[in-house]
Amino acid sequence: MILTVTLNSALDVTYRVPRLRPHASHRVSAVTERPGGKGINVARVLAGLGHPVTATGFAGGPAGALVRELLARSPGVVDALVPCADTTRRTVAVVDEASGDTTQFNEPGPLITPAEWSAFLERYEALLAGARAVALCGSLPPGVPVGAYAVLVRAARAAGAPVLLDTSGEALRRGVAARPEMIKPNGAELAELTGSREPLPATRDARRRGAHAVVTSLGPDGLLAATGQGSWRAAPPRALSGNPTGAGDSAVAGLLSALVEGLDWPERLVRAVALSAATVAAPTAGEFDPRTYEEVRGSVKVTAVQ
Amino acid sequence: MILTVTLNSALDVTYRVPRLRPHASHRVSAVTERPGGKGINVARVLAGLGHPVTATGFAGGPAGALVRELLARSPGVVDALVPCADTTRRTVAVVDEASGDTTQFNEPGPLITPAEWSAFLERYEALLAGARAVALCGSLPPGVPVGAYAVLVRAARAAGAPVLLDTSGEALRRGVAARPEMIKPNGAELAELTGSREPLPATRDARRRGAHAVVTSLGPDGLLAATGQGSWRAAPPRALSGNPTGAGDSAVAGLLSALVEGLDWPERLVRAVALSAATVAAPTAGEFDPRTYEEVRGSVKVTAVQ
Repeated sequence: MILTVTLNSALDVTYRVPRLRPHASHRVSAVTERPGGKGINVARVLAGLGHPVTATGFAGGPAGALVRELLARSPGVVDALVPCADTTRRTVAVVDEASGDTTQFNEPGPLITPAEWSAFLERYEALLAGARAVALCGSLPPGVPVGAYAVLVRAARAAGAPVLLDTSGEALRRGVAARPEMIKPNGAELAELTGSREPLPATRDARRRGAHAVVTSLGPDGLLAATGQGSWRAAPPRALSGNPTGAGDSAVAGLLSALVEGLDWPERLVRAVALSAATVAAPTAGEFDPRTYEEVRGSVKVTAVQ
Repeated sequence: MILTVTLNSALDVTYRVPRLRPHASHRVSAVTERPGGKGINVARVLAGLGHPVTATGFAGGPAGALVRELLARSPGVVDALVPCADTTRRTVAVVDEASGDTTQFNEPGPLITPAEWSAFLERYEALLAGARAVALCGSLPPGVPVGAYAVLVRAARAAGAPVLLDTSGEALRRGVAARPEMIKPNGAELAELTGSREPLPATRDARRRGAHAVVTSLGPDGLLAATGQGSWRAAPPRALSGNPTGAGDSAVAGLLSALVEGLDWPERLVRAVALSAATVAAPTAGEFDPRTYEEVRGSVKVTAVQ
């Protein structure tokens, strides 16, 4: 199976309002709730691709119970979340139906105790035995050591499982130094890591900091990869309109599933770009539209970069 | 005891953000959760005044469980909420720390089944036996008949308990016709009921529609009452700055507690105005500040109106 880690899982709540008016009162016309956090999103896309997948991380309190209940209804994802006493965060996305724009509110995560962190490490080590690849995704909740991802990368390496790390800030900086197989920063995360806003030099700089491969998300322009086998740009055939929420998580699922299937780099990038595009095009945030996936897959343009 | 009814109870969630920017992503710096819905707010203020009080209505799902858990920690309020299968609504108030303004999102309520409504009516009838007064507060959740408040007013009258009805729209229109002891509309609710935006004629018109007394909230200008004993204006000594959330619920608690204590109309209005002002002045929305209450109580100006 593929193992995804979401230390700061979330209950993602979406509110639809006819029009967002700051400092006014709104009747919410529709409420949806989904299990969230980047690694859980990645797990759901992997399951949609037919890969056996296990999701771990923390879940606690009423929101955590709901995350687990909703996850149990997601076909194909095995729940290996570790309980915590404090409550899992909620995120509230307010969709303005007039403009289609989203205003997002993210609660801080639960405070993880040292004993809970130890319990997680024990569970993670046990899960690594059956893992063909590992995705380490998202922010660290309070209480988890800032060097956590470096520890998790090393443990996976020792177990022979390649790791994709998708996080930001200091957690990314420390995790990269532990030499993960891949990182997948966006432009802002890459700039924070390297100090450069030039995608190609910054992507190559990030590789020198320890990642075996760096795949930078360029938003609607696709992906830019610097690897031991070469560098490529991969672009969708056209800009797709829709909701970009979860597009990055779908790219992670594409890269990791293609790695496990033994595909080469250009094929991995085609899959990641097509899944991202299919996620932007899907009516529900974070889902991917299978028809768009098949359609875009045939027309992603991959170009070698010198 | 005093019985408060909150058919559409709520889990009131407050998010503080440094500054609200529409269509941006916000890290929430602080999250607070309170049991809410107008009748539950009234119950908490009544308990703060030392009155024995029981809260009924519906609670269901994870949010309903949290409402009950938090209510259990509110000293003095007896929980007589009736379970429902669907989930209690949440309200999310986003406080912009730069301006102090609040942007509010209210979920729709749970869908109440006919069997749940029957179970509520049975519980309500049983509770009326021990009730010295009843507050019927707030909106009706989906599934509850629009004439619900008329039914509840008549049952209380039959049990000899005076009723204060605080709602709006069609629920108010139908409830008024059942002749409650008091209604407490604000200007907008009164205009919707009577078609008039002139407070004094509209207040008197609302009395002719069935309520024995009508107490109209004039916001920072206080209250205007039309009763069988006369008409009065009651105004706070000065405008208080703060958060008006819950000020109307505190006025309801003031009117009802004073009725039960046998106070006359001018004294009831003094208490209601002082409690409202003390709620606006309190640091936490919906609480009342006891010092402001004592201070304002001595200086509310009550004027007879011809």
